[in-house]
Amino acid sequence: MSSTPSPRIDGRTPEQLRPITIERGWSKHAEGSVLISFGDTKVFCTASVTEGVPRWRKGSGEGWVTAEYSMLPRSTNTRGDREAVRGKIGGRTHEISRLIGRSLRAVIDYKSLGENTIVLDCDVLQADGGTRTAAITGAYVALADAVAWAQGKKLIKAGRKPLTDTVSAVSVGIVGGVPLLDLCYEEDVKADTDMNVVCTGDGRFVEVQGTAEAEPFDRKELNALLDLAVGGCEDLAAFQREALAATR
Amino acid sequence: MSSTPSPRIDGRTPEQLRPITIERGWSKHAEGSVLISFGDTKVFCTASVTEGVPRWRKGSGEGWVTAEYSMLPRSTNTRGDREAVRGKIGGRTHEISRLIGRSLRAVIDYKSLGENTIVLDCDVLQADGGTRTAAITGAYVALADAVAWAQGKKLIKAGRKPLTDTVSAVSVGIVGGVPLLDLCYEEDVKADTDMNVVCTGDGRFVEVQGTAEAEPFDRKELNALLDLAVGGCEDLAAFQREALAATR
Amino acid sequence: MSSTPSPRIDGRTPEQLRPITIERGWSKHAEGSVLISFGDTKVFCTASVTEGVPRWRKGSGEGWVTAEYSMLPRSTNTRGDREAVRGKIGGRTHEISRLIGRSLRAVIDYKSLGENTIVLDCDVLQADGGTRTAAITGAYVALADAVAWAQGKKLIKAGRKPLTDTVSAVSVGIVGGVPLLDLCYEEDVKADTDMNVVCTGDGRFVEVQGTAEAEPFDRKELNALLDLAVGGCEDLAAFQREALAATR
Amino acid sequence: MSSTPSPRIDGRTPEQLRPITIERGWSKHAEGSVLISFGDTKVFCTASVTEGVPRWRKGSGEGWVTAEYSMLPRSTNTRGDREAVRGKIGGRTHEISRLIGRSLRAVIDYKSLGENTIVLDCDVLQADGGTRTAAITGAYVALADAVAWAQGKKLIKAGRKPLTDTVSAVSVGIVGGVPLLDLCYEEDVKADTDMNVVCTGDGRFVEVQGTAEAEPFDRKELNALLDLAVGGCEDLAAFQREALAATR
Amino acid sequence: MSSTPSPRIDGRTPEQLRPITIERGWSKHAEGSVLISFGDTKVFCTASVTEGVPRWRKGSGEGWVTAEYSMLPRSTNTRGDREAVRGKIGGRTHEISRLIGRSLRAVIDYKSLGENTIVLDCDVLQADGGTRTAAITGAYVALADAVAWAQGKKLIKAGRKPLTDTVSAVSVGIVGGVPLLDLCYEEDVKADTDMNVVCTGDGRFVEVQGTAEAEPFDRKELNALLDLAVGGCEDLAAFQREALAATR
Amino acid sequence: MSSTPSPRIDGRTPEQLRPITIERGWSKHAEGSVLISFGDTKVFCTASVTEGVPRWRKGSGEGWVTAEYSMLPRSTNTRGDREAVRGKIGGRTHEISRLIGRSLRAVIDYKSLGENTIVLDCDVLQADGGTRTAAITGAYVALADAVAWAQGKKLIKAGRKPLTDTVSAVSVGIVGGVPLLDLCYEEDVKADTDMNVVCTGDGRFVEVQGTAEAEPFDRKELNALLDLAVGGCEDLAAFQREALAATR
Repeated sequence: MSSTPSPRIDGRTPEQLRPITIERGWSKHAEGSVLISFGDTKVFCTASVTEGVPRWRKGSGEGWVTAEYSMLPRSTNTRGDREAVRGKIGGRTHEISRLIGRSLRAVIDYKSLGENTIVLDCDVLQADGGTRTAAITGAYVALADAVAWAQGKKLIKAGRKPLTDTVSAVSVGIVGGVPLLDLCYEEDVKADTDMNVVCTGDGRFVEVQGTAEAEPFDRKELNALLDLAVGGCEDLAAFQREALAATR
Repeated sequence: MSSTPSPRIDGRTPEQLRPITIERGWSKHAEGSVLISFGDTKVFCTASVTEGVPRWRKGSGEGWVTAEYSMLPRSTNTRGDREAVRGKIGGRTHEISRLIGRSLRAVIDYKSLGENTIVLDCDVLQADGGTRTAAITGAYVALADAVAWAQGKKLIKAGRKPLTDTVSAVSVGIVGGVPLLDLCYEEDVKADTDMNVVCTGDGRFVEVQGTAEAEPFDRKELNALLDLAVGGCEDLAAFQREALAATR
Repeated sequence: MSSTPSPRIDGRTPEQLRPITIERGWSKHAEGSVLISFGDTKVFCTASVTEGVPRWRKGSGEGWVTAEYSMLPRSTNTRGDREAVRGKIGGRTHEISRLIGRSLRAVIDYKSLGENTIVLDCDVLQADGGTRTAAITGAYVALADAVAWAQGKKLIKAGRKPLTDTVSAVSVGIVGGVPLLDLCYEEDVKADTDMNVVCTGDGRFVEVQGTAEAEPFDRKELNALLDLAVGGCEDLAAFQREALAATR
Repeated sequence: MSSTPSPRIDGRTPEQLRPITIERGWSKHAEGSVLISFGDTKVFCTASVTEGVPRWRKGSGEGWVTAEYSMLPRSTNTRGDREAVRGKIGGRTHEISRLIGRSLRAVIDYKSLGENTIVLDCDVLQADGGTRTAAITGAYVALADAVAWAQGKKLIKAGRKPLTDTVSAVSVGIVGGVPLLDLCYEEDVKADTDMNVVCTGDGRFVEVQGTAEAEPFDRKELNALLDLAVGGCEDLAAFQREALAATR
Repeated sequence: MSSTPSPRIDGRTPEQLRPITIERGWSKHAEGSVLISFGDTKVFCTASVTEGVPRWRKGSGEGWVTAEYSMLPRSTNTRGDREAVRGKIGGRTHEISRLIGRSLRAVIDYKSLGENTIVLDCDVLQADGGTRTAAITGAYVALADAVAWAQGKKLIKAGRKPLTDTVSAVSVGIVGGVPLLDLCYEEDVKADTDMNVVCTGDGRFVEVQGTAEAEPFDRKELNALLDLAVGGCEDLAAFQREALAATR
Repeated sequence: MSSTPSPRIDGRTPEQLRPITIERGWSKHAEGSVLISFGDTKVFCTASVTEGVPRWRKGSGEGWVTAEYSMLPRSTNTRGDREAVRGKIGGRTHEISRLIGRSLRAVIDYKSLGENTIVLDCDVLQADGGTRTAAITGAYVALADAVAWAQGKKLIKAGRKPLTDTVSAVSVGIVGGVPLLDLCYEEDVKADTDMNVVCTGDGRFVEVQGTAEAEPFDRKELNALLDLAVGGCEDLAAFQREALAATR
């Protein structure tokens, strides 16, 4: 990769993440809050704790975690209509909200959480590709802070550890025949195949969502993308641990 | 697999599809129509052809294919509310409609289709697991009939072949540690990992969507599931060809 | 009527129903389910039983029966928008759902039903005129099966008979000056007057809805239409009895 | 009927209408406007004329007439929710709006109206039974004034008569075994059968909608109700003519 | 102001209200009801009393008062769409409903009202400027009648006076450089500044809402408008007292 | 004010603003973007320029400016539901969006703007009182940047100055009998009277909205509040000029 010119717009190597920043404590109200950036993609993640659970879960002794994703109207290059104004949530928003919720629930031990609910709100302030993966990665950190807050408030019983692992996510894709990690918007638009991968800290998969945007992809390409993604998630898990290790 | 008892509720081997039936011409109005069943899962798929394309595509010389998925209120064990009555479409419905649309567009050559639109409606009459994969597999056959109709009506130019391949889909999952093909509802509920795979007739991937329902899954499990799915899609492609070969 | 050529498109005599088929047990989930066809009009009717009644009826000791009607988007010649996608139910759908509900409640003894609710879903798979009358006629059979199921499950007290009679419906109209029974779509479009009549098995009226589509109609025409309709409902009641007499 | 005590709450004979008042010119803005009362039922009807027709009718040379019905929240004994607040129109409102529109279109010659649209708004200020029949009867008078206005403005060609007849409506029902004309709310609640009949000035039927609220009804009862309704509509037509004869 | 020609369309002096009429008891159902007119602006106000309060207020021992405002579709010069048909309430309607509610709550002693709710419905039958100020002024009178009714029914404890004062409202504006009281529609359209002022009977302010429609306004203009408005509200308070003094 | 203890929670004098920060260029996509804070209230304002105007304004040669306001779900102390999820925009949101739009249009010369539209999106990231006034003040700066951008792109004709002045806004209120400038949330909750004032840079009024939250207010109190507000807006105008003078 050294002497040949980089195949990427921003000079990265194919297996390199964009600059990642994770700022905790970005809101004075939320129990956990994070401003995460993957390059120019910026997502504001808050975690809100409430005692009690939805009706269908009452009396189970188990908690619940859910998520809502949204893009600010001018987070993108062209202004989009507000979903509140249109009066309905679009399919893409629904899909990503569900993905974030499932990803975080994969590392939650409901019993240890007890009958508490944590809602993650992931609002995209600026979009440049990979908003859902940044949202999952940032939401995990906000969730960890919210869990710590609930432990401090004794909403969670002493000795209980509701988080079983970390979880992070990254996009990968094949652009011009080359598998690339963490696509920015320009790369995403040109990708033949686009895949989002969510991994736990121990390197196992929570979600694998690959889509052929142009040409179908074969098993070899799929394997190359999975390799890249696992490496990227490993790096992101390190950033998450580092952010959480810092004293706020 | 021979002497040990089957690990499956309905006596199938792990790599065996449920009985598949594909009935063409199930509607007198639609340009293509199919009643497909994967065991007790029954989906009614219609393909509706209209001249012209949505506004954002006008003048491009290219066609468009889209899909809508829905479950009848009592297609499931317990009656669900109608989305029309609730006044909004749920996230799951949105997600599956989008998946079906993308899957079919993967085998469409827009230029050859010309400025025509084909809408696939996939309505689940009875659900027993795998409704989205049955929908994709059935919708392809309805689409093929609709394309043939449009060729007959000269809406598509002579010699043009808008379909570049077949496309089919199947679910796979790990139940009690065993990777299984084409889960029925009871298996689906017990699965640790659930994956939907969409393949073209030549065995390449259009979509791979794997979700850890309980435990995260590792690379070895992922590979086993992909192997099963590719085999299942191959069989489904054969059923599609056979159905389309029959004279109606 | 004998030697003159039939005035009807499909060769029927003015007082002749289209071929009627009633298939019970068309769903493995619903407590009652029927696929009914009036010629090319096919409606899938399911009856769903739940213990308990809506809040406003609690503690009354009386049950409730209600209905929802819908057309699949491509049940008609030209594809219609899904009401779920538009986010609201149209006036016609509302009107027909209410008509079906009222018609079935006319033969229900709420006291005998006890505090149980039965919801009838009537989804039109293929439309060729008379969808609401086919829906009522088929829904009655699904309702009867659901009542029998509830009796078997002891949800209804021994010896109680919630059904006081059968109920069926048929359309009549004046086409080219001739009163005709059970209009198909092409006849319906050309009708000057269109009437839907719902009768109990003993030949009395539950609903009479006549509309002048072009010219207002006089008393004599009204009487001719009512005569035709009463005869048609009598025949339909016989088909219902026959369908219910068969062992499933 | 003479010496026996009246069977009715308000002392009327069975075949007697409530006091009818029709005030024209009740709005300074609308092209036609009427406050009509059938006893304590008061409906405010406006007719709004606009040049042009809905898109699907453009270029046909024919006009269009449509109607919207609504009840003010406290027009009834107990306050009802506003449909605008609930965000959707109920089935009953839809049904009645459609009925009013059809009834008025029955006396419109679209060709003579030319490409003009008239919208009738019927807002119930106070309800005491028979709101839909009062609405139809009042809306006709507002329509007639609007047509005259459009003739004066030369929107309608000289010599053209868009109105082919008058149209009025009345409710009838069987209460305690006695057929009664023009039911007030208290009678309506107790009626076994409830029928709304719309007639043209020449005594023919535009709509006949009979519903068994409790017991199904037989042919003899139906005939008695129709007789009453035809007489009532005749009286209403006289009131309409009288109101329109007055100089405003 | 004497010898110079009036600057106003309808010949009023700048500080003169339009003719005000307040008719009580305009509905037989509502606990309080008023038809108020400010010139050609006519608003129908009803007050509906129900025992109990919204959930968030239960057990507080305090009552609640709220309001809903709406315009009939043809209350204006050009017909507007019904908000119920559009499926959502517009911003202006929301804003005015909230203003009316706040204005009336300013003269309510919740403790004295006890756990009762009064809903004010203000429906504009005819609009000619100042609909919100007429609505507030009329709604107060309907509210006073409803409170009296609730006292009569012992829903309010003996000796309790839920109304602490009267409340009325008027619009003022600068038209052609001249501050004017109670603008009619034509004046409103031409106004540079438009202000709505709500006062209690003792001359204090409940709401002051001034908007520069064209040019921003200075302190001197603001003062002139406030002077006019206070005088107008004083006159309106007298009309309210007079209306309430009359025996119904 | 010197020796007596401050009456305010955060130690400010009654006529002192909270710390104000205005960061321009906070988004890489929007033509103008600002993160403004009034103490702990943080609002993200973007200005989006598009060529062309809404249909009703086409061909007028004049531009249009509009605004949308929204609060992120966890911008407040307790998480609020998303309006997009509820499917409708609340009255308060509507009201504030309209206020922001009117305020900015007060300093726009539509002719100079030409047929261009500028949409201001004001999303509250963190709320601590005064969100609408911070939104107006920040949106003005984003608008100025957007206008400059449009001038640079020649969308606005050379020499044209669409901005006629600056505009800013501040809240004032009476807390414990003392008139205070720029209320934080805790003060706002305790205020008897709450007023929002929007001024142009030359000290004139664009909007004055005063509301008695508890007791009605008299003319003297109103004057004291207006004095405070005019001073606060003057300071805010200075901050705006300073922010815009900086090179980005």
